[in-house]
Amino acid sequence: MAFPRPTRHDGTMTNETNATDEATKTTTAATRVEHDCIGELAVPADVYWGIHTQRAIGNFPVSGITDSQHPELVRAYATVKRACASANEELGLIDADKARFIRKACVEIEGGKLADQFPVDVMQGGAGTSSNMNMNEVIANRALELAGRKRGDYAYIHPNDDVNESQSTNDTYPAACKLALIDAIHPLAESTKRLAKAFHDLADKHINDVTLGRTQLQDAVPMTYGQEFHAFATLLKSDLAGFERLVPQLAQLNLGATAIGTGICADLRFRRAATEHLARITGLPITAAPDPVAAMTDMGAYVSTSAALKNLAVHLKKAADDLRLLNSGPRAGFNDLDVPARQAGSSIMPAKVNPVIPECVNQCCFMVFGMDVTVNWAVAEGQLQLNAFDPVMVHELLTGMSLLTNAMDVFRANCIEGIVVHTEVGRAHAESTPSIAAALNHYIGYERGSAIAAEAVRSGRTVREVAGEMTDLPAERLDEILDPIRLARGLGQTCREHLPEPRP
Amino acid sequence: MAFPRPTRHDGTMTNETNATDEATKTTTAATRVEHDCIGELAVPADVYWGIHTQRAIGNFPVSGITDSQHPELVRAYATVKRACASANEELGLIDADKARFIRKACVEIEGGKLADQFPVDVMQGGAGTSSNMNMNEVIANRALELAGRKRGDYAYIHPNDDVNESQSTNDTYPAACKLALIDAIHPLAESTKRLAKAFHDLADKHINDVTLGRTQLQDAVPMTYGQEFHAFATLLKSDLAGFERLVPQLAQLNLGATAIGTGICADLRFRRAATEHLARITGLPITAAPDPVAAMTDMGAYVSTSAALKNLAVHLKKAADDLRLLNSGPRAGFNDLDVPARQAGSSIMPAKVNPVIPECVNQCCFMVFGMDVTVNWAVAEGQLQLNAFDPVMVHELLTGMSLLTNAMDVFRANCIEGIVVHTEVGRAHAESTPSIAAALNHYIGYERGSAIAAEAVRSGRTVREVAGEMTDLPAERLDEILDPIRLARGLGQTCREHLPEPRP
Amino acid sequence: MAFPRPTRHDGTMTNETNATDEATKTTTAATRVEHDCIGELAVPADVYWGIHTQRAIGNFPVSGITDSQHPELVRAYATVKRACASANEELGLIDADKARFIRKACVEIEGGKLADQFPVDVMQGGAGTSSNMNMNEVIANRALELAGRKRGDYAYIHPNDDVNESQSTNDTYPAACKLALIDAIHPLAESTKRLAKAFHDLADKHINDVTLGRTQLQDAVPMTYGQEFHAFATLLKSDLAGFERLVPQLAQLNLGATAIGTGICADLRFRRAATEHLARITGLPITAAPDPVAAMTDMGAYVSTSAALKNLAVHLKKAADDLRLLNSGPRAGFNDLDVPARQAGSSIMPAKVNPVIPECVNQCCFMVFGMDVTVNWAVAEGQLQLNAFDPVMVHELLTGMSLLTNAMDVFRANCIEGIVVHTEVGRAHAESTPSIAAALNHYIGYERGSAIAAEAVRSGRTVREVAGEMTDLPAERLDEILDPIRLARGLGQTCREHLPEPRP
Amino acid sequence: MAFPRPTRHDGTMTNETNATDEATKTTTAATRVEHDCIGELAVPADVYWGIHTQRAIGNFPVSGITDSQHPELVRAYATVKRACASANEELGLIDADKARFIRKACVEIEGGKLADQFPVDVMQGGAGTSSNMNMNEVIANRALELAGRKRGDYAYIHPNDDVNESQSTNDTYPAACKLALIDAIHPLAESTKRLAKAFHDLADKHINDVTLGRTQLQDAVPMTYGQEFHAFATLLKSDLAGFERLVPQLAQLNLGATAIGTGICADLRFRRAATEHLARITGLPITAAPDPVAAMTDMGAYVSTSAALKNLAVHLKKAADDLRLLNSGPRAGFNDLDVPARQAGSSIMPAKVNPVIPECVNQCCFMVFGMDVTVNWAVAEGQLQLNAFDPVMVHELLTGMSLLTNAMDVFRANCIEGIVVHTEVGRAHAESTPSIAAALNHYIGYERGSAIAAEAVRSGRTVREVAGEMTDLPAERLDEILDPIRLARGLGQTCREHLPEPRP
Repeated sequence: MAFPRPTRHDGTMTNETNATDEATKTTTAATRVEHDCIGELAVPADVYWGIHTQRAIGNFPVSGITDSQHPELVRAYATVKRACASANEELGLIDADKARFIRKACVEIEGGKLADQFPVDVMQGGAGTSSNMNMNEVIANRALELAGRKRGDYAYIHPNDDVNESQSTNDTYPAACKLALIDAIHPLAESTKRLAKAFHDLADKHINDVTLGRTQLQDAVPMTYGQEFHAFATLLKSDLAGFERLVPQLAQLNLGATAIGTGICADLRFRRAATEHLARITGLPITAAPDPVAAMTDMGAYVSTSAALKNLAVHLKKAADDLRLLNSGPRAGFNDLDVPARQAGSSIMPAKVNPVIPECVNQCCFMVFGMDVTVNWAVAEGQLQLNAFDPVMVHELLTGMSLLTNAMDVFRANCIEGIVVHTEVGRAHAESTPSIAAALNHYIGYERGSAIAAEAVRSGRTVREVAGEMTDLPAERLDEILDPIRLARGLGQTCREHLPEPRP
Repeated sequence: MAFPRPTRHDGTMTNETNATDEATKTTTAATRVEHDCIGELAVPADVYWGIHTQRAIGNFPVSGITDSQHPELVRAYATVKRACASANEELGLIDADKARFIRKACVEIEGGKLADQFPVDVMQGGAGTSSNMNMNEVIANRALELAGRKRGDYAYIHPNDDVNESQSTNDTYPAACKLALIDAIHPLAESTKRLAKAFHDLADKHINDVTLGRTQLQDAVPMTYGQEFHAFATLLKSDLAGFERLVPQLAQLNLGATAIGTGICADLRFRRAATEHLARITGLPITAAPDPVAAMTDMGAYVSTSAALKNLAVHLKKAADDLRLLNSGPRAGFNDLDVPARQAGSSIMPAKVNPVIPECVNQCCFMVFGMDVTVNWAVAEGQLQLNAFDPVMVHELLTGMSLLTNAMDVFRANCIEGIVVHTEVGRAHAESTPSIAAALNHYIGYERGSAIAAEAVRSGRTVREVAGEMTDLPAERLDEILDPIRLARGLGQTCREHLPEPRP
Repeated sequence: MAFPRPTRHDGTMTNETNATDEATKTTTAATRVEHDCIGELAVPADVYWGIHTQRAIGNFPVSGITDSQHPELVRAYATVKRACASANEELGLIDADKARFIRKACVEIEGGKLADQFPVDVMQGGAGTSSNMNMNEVIANRALELAGRKRGDYAYIHPNDDVNESQSTNDTYPAACKLALIDAIHPLAESTKRLAKAFHDLADKHINDVTLGRTQLQDAVPMTYGQEFHAFATLLKSDLAGFERLVPQLAQLNLGATAIGTGICADLRFRRAATEHLARITGLPITAAPDPVAAMTDMGAYVSTSAALKNLAVHLKKAADDLRLLNSGPRAGFNDLDVPARQAGSSIMPAKVNPVIPECVNQCCFMVFGMDVTVNWAVAEGQLQLNAFDPVMVHELLTGMSLLTNAMDVFRANCIEGIVVHTEVGRAHAESTPSIAAALNHYIGYERGSAIAAEAVRSGRTVREVAGEMTDLPAERLDEILDPIRLARGLGQTCREHLPEPRP
Repeated sequence: MAFPRPTRHDGTMTNETNATDEATKTTTAATRVEHDCIGELAVPADVYWGIHTQRAIGNFPVSGITDSQHPELVRAYATVKRACASANEELGLIDADKARFIRKACVEIEGGKLADQFPVDVMQGGAGTSSNMNMNEVIANRALELAGRKRGDYAYIHPNDDVNESQSTNDTYPAACKLALIDAIHPLAESTKRLAKAFHDLADKHINDVTLGRTQLQDAVPMTYGQEFHAFATLLKSDLAGFERLVPQLAQLNLGATAIGTGICADLRFRRAATEHLARITGLPITAAPDPVAAMTDMGAYVSTSAALKNLAVHLKKAADDLRLLNSGPRAGFNDLDVPARQAGSSIMPAKVNPVIPECVNQCCFMVFGMDVTVNWAVAEGQLQLNAFDPVMVHELLTGMSLLTNAMDVFRANCIEGIVVHTEVGRAHAESTPSIAAALNHYIGYERGSAIAAEAVRSGRTVREVAGEMTDLPAERLDEILDPIRLARGLGQTCREHLPEPRP
């Protein structure tokens, strides 16, 4: 989290300097004065936001990170407002001209304009009210401009009465949050696909290169590098499927149920209309939650999103951990492969190169594991008809998604694509493992197989060597039975088809 | 976690007393001696387990909780072994007689017999190898008995070579774990349904009883107790749907891929055969994972199960928290309802009754939140071709499922079913809220509505009273507009249909 | 966490564009070319950093947050380098002129100069090597300038050989991290003190104002607002004591033990000298860890810091939660007090004001709880002679400290200092509680006390009223016994001194 | 957690069967009937507990784990009651005979008698009220017996009025919990010491055996096995110091402040008297919290205990992780040492032996990490004048302490004491590392050192071999400079003393 020092408070911060209207309402050429139920406040003349946003800026200077830094959220909220404007127009609740200007302003914001007009801290209290007010104000003022009027001329287009018509924070803010998460899934999924492809490409290149599988860090039985890398791709593909399963859950919204789920102040037809307009605009399978009161407090979609993200992080951590192990050495470790040298590893140990990219990935995963706990706290602290803590949820989830999106691209471009496999090391490992004696079980029995394995360990020779001495099996047969690539490819399993009957 | 004191170690625990074969292999009438690759060990004559189990008992005395205390796991493992025996018989890998005795032993265990024969600590190292060995030994010895032979006569039926034929721990143990979780979903879901029904019944009884919705703990707008309780039922129903979504994921198994996913030592046809037999026996949609190497390390099913359980806990916590709030008082709190008096609340404050049942539920939820983190650790610490930490995962998940199963029944029977709603308090709250002025917005405008609300707050009167003075609306009209039940039911939204056009 | 969109990668990020030296080493007027063990790379001519930093910029673009955004870390690292330069000079390992220029550069950085010269992502892999290299390079280049030479003239002052003399990342980076944490404790403690004072002032103002204590959300017995607010101050004071206990642990460093704790490449006398110089410069009780190999991997200081921060967050959450409860209402809640109105609470519910500041504080606490888990992951994932994950630890801890520092100032200035207590409500609550009957126990016995309490609940009257009817105690005596302020102040306990003997 | 199946509820659990007094109050020869403010209830005649306990048994059947399974808690609570009885006697609040019988009963319980009389579920709601009531009832009934009276003859000695005199749950239960934690520290510390000694002994045995230090899993520079193992002992010793720091915090109690910290119903002198008696009985530095209202809700002692336990788990995990790495192989891993073979590792891979004991330890650590999060939830969910969730806190902490106590003994006896170091492998690793070239830096400069290291890597030779060719240093000098043991012992650092001046 970025905390630019200037925003850190010192002892001079007092509620007087923050709260006093007197001090700030002095209009100058550079401000306009707005009012709300608390009083009046001067707002800089050149901003699109209004009094509610201005108060919120002063209320929540805690993280230094603003809504503007979550552009998916800003864009998604504008989309929600656009759909609501269309629904309001359709139902005759606002007139066509106003609706047109409002929609035009929304489209601009969705396109990335006015991106710096959302200055409220992401850790805001108020269940997203400030973000909603901010959006209403910016849309209203931009719509006013488009209508040829002055900012602040709310008698013509009002932030609450027009832009927010039939809506409340409690139904629109979660809608925007969930759309933002769907939006953020896209780059996340693309990055996941690219990384999966990189693993797949690496696997294809080494589909026939034998190495040693290890269980509990102990030498086990042969496999190929191809199988090993392919597994990473498979895990990532399961994550992609998981992301897709999130969409219907995230697309179930509660538009029109206003403050507590009873739909107070909203025309009964609004729910259907807004939902349909939003589905049309976004192309997403937007639905209305069947129990609007329950939907107001259900945080299940966030729990699921966090779990999906955590599962991805588990897979990334596994790949990073495994690569760091496989890269260990060069002399006194596994040495199965080299990750690319990205920078000097040590100021005093010459030629030391460290797996810095996987380490970076590991740390991103730790962040996501912590994020999951923060989300857990936020989702489980709702009270009565509202959970006021969506802001921290959506902030954490969007942050986690960005972090993993970036981390996967870094992982791919700065590491996976440059991996050099030590094929000769892998083969030597595969041939040296005592556990390869398992392949002999069906020919000579488990007991004699064990004796051979034990002798191999004792004498430092390979099972193949010892088996040549301690069995009557012909050399070619032994070569075939103990062929690592055959065992790796699973052909080994068919050995029994050569046998007349099961071991008695 | 139960730690019977006798199992706590003191300074006298040494590896000699644990590891020495000499001390224990003295056969007496009461023991039989078995051997493994490490040496010989005496096993009590009257137990069904063998040397591998006996060693494991000595190896892992850390929690005092044994596999026997997870009967779903024991039963599920026997089912897996039964399916494998059938597959082995079908493929001609073991003969029909042996297969029959093995299956018969499995069926007994599935039916609850020999339940005390699984004495290994649930926190065992070894990726479940001890549980597998324990199961193999108990089945083999019981099958030997059924065949009219002596326990330990492994030449006829061998724990590894026959019961474990074509299998390893790494493919069968996770299969048993996942089946056990599916099994544990059943009572969990039943308990969830019963609790949902209790909330639903309570809701139906109070479908027309008005109360006050609160957002951010502030008085908001009217709703009914029915809506409030119904929402709890709806949330629980979403959990039921979540449990069902788990089943296909938990039913994707990796039978036949043995040690590392390459299927070494298993007939190629075994995977299909074992999967089909298991599907037939269980009636579950058992499938084989498409990438057996990846499946060996993918812990996604556990992450999903933990997330589903956590989501349920979030919902239970919300209900418990809300009920504690609604029950607060009797004089200086919300006092919307009474939870039943289950026990005296205080030794010194007479007549004080506390919401002890919701508090118990809260604590169970905290356990589940911690469990989720433990599971996170375990799933993310796999290395290379295996994650050795399934034992703690399945222990934690089964524990969490039992805990919530029980907690929901306690919640229902000892609390929800005895709740007494204070209908008169709810109505008074609903009528007194200043926010009800929102209903006037469309008739007199937001500005005048605000003035009425402010005056109501100032003077301590209701909005209805003040509006009678400060507007020209006729009394019947005001009664209608401000009727809490009408507002609660969402009829309020149609108010606009009476209006010629939207507020300009 | 801030993710400026420009840093998000798209599919065009490839290892070619990142890794290729060819593409970038083309010197232009605006660059200088440096080299390392990997090859050559062009560095912008106008920056103070060198090739190691330049590579790291390309290696870790994951969070968009740079070391520059943790100025405590930058300053602390410069301080460590200054102490090491003095130690090297004292031991004759670098000459006095070099040492002087190096120290001068350090002092500038400590004073806030060159603050934008630390562009490496905070989530960097490599155990802080990039931060160390970055610091070495910036100091070297600035020292060269001060010596009248050109940047990059490393033959005179070398980043590694001179600035880093006798040091490695593994001993200096943790030292800088821990000093940075000590540094960050200062504003945190100051903010804590200010908030504690605000609670204390509020408490003093209401030292005699009675209200009702509640246990398990049920009406309990009288206390004063003063006692209630004073407790918040007391909890914060215990946090201050906790911060102080951290300092000696954070001040135990491992300077001079270089790469793995054996002190390779460092003069044996360097450890003492560097430690003493750092103690002198900082005025802190800097010590050298007794077991340098263990110290290299011990993360206990981070665990303790995180726990202290979490404890503070627990206290802040409690205050925020309690204030939201006490502020609940205005009609259908506790209504013990009003938090100040900071902004309009709802777009559709007139006059609704929400406790947005405590809600903001709550969310900051959730962040800290998640941070603690991230730190747990990082501290527990070290391997062999190094834990490579200090970067995420120090990032998270500094972030959490900043967040709470700011949150407490916001809490104080925007909420606590403006709280208005409803003294009449508190007194009414205190008088109405049935549990006040506890005060009668010693005069009329528990049984009769219970009967009075029950009748009070039943009839809706106060215990005082009912006791007037149901006991023979004179009115003045009852007034005295049941006087809430007397009970709140703990004078009630002395009641027994009036009694001849204990209740038989 | 142990969930004996019989306690799992099915659909037949209804509040009727649990709550109805009618059904159960039928006295038979085998029951006695007691009453409370809710009504009457039959209690088995042969138990020492009474109606409050009996109700609680029915209220909380969720975990199947009872207070009896935390004997430290039972014993500690009896000690608290004993001290309170003495204080009450001293102040003349109960007469000497009663006090004597009460104390006698307490002493018996402290000695382990009546250990099965505490049947309430550890997850009980009610802030420990049921545990307090249970203790009061058992003490009262046993005291009655000792006085020659019948159980249930509360007119002579009453559970609340006598045993609980001057006390409430809210001051005595946390006192008992904290004493129980202090008590549990003892075996934990003893186990820690034994494990530290085992590491120390192993270290001493290998004080001169060289091996290779690794950073970021890459070959770094030489160290000894002695240094490596000694570090584990050092980390554990830091935990012992941490446990000691807990004691004063845990020994700060709140006796006499009764329900909410105002001391209602307690003689003012009781606080001092009870505190002094408890200090005398326990020999612990018991103190009274300076702010009794704040102390009622401060959970800092639990946060600290959990953090200390987590820090220990971090250290244990590190040792377990490292040993699994060092034991990896035997052919394709690090192979620095062998952990003892405790059981066969695989049913199909002959002679495979896995590090099952470290894996068991790992899982215990994951439990503790989850426990820390559960404790976090519980400590942060207090409301107003009480945190009702101590039961889950103390249950989790005692469980975690037992688990680690046992895990360390298992770790020591079943693993550490049997470790066999591969001294020849360690030496070979140390000699083969390219990073040993760092030792040459001061003689031939970093550039030439790098060239030698690079050539060693390229050609597969040792730095010593290559340096013999590429430098003019005499063989004996090279042998000395590159002597791993010399480098490991830190003598290497003094190399500069041989040099006339620092490298220019």
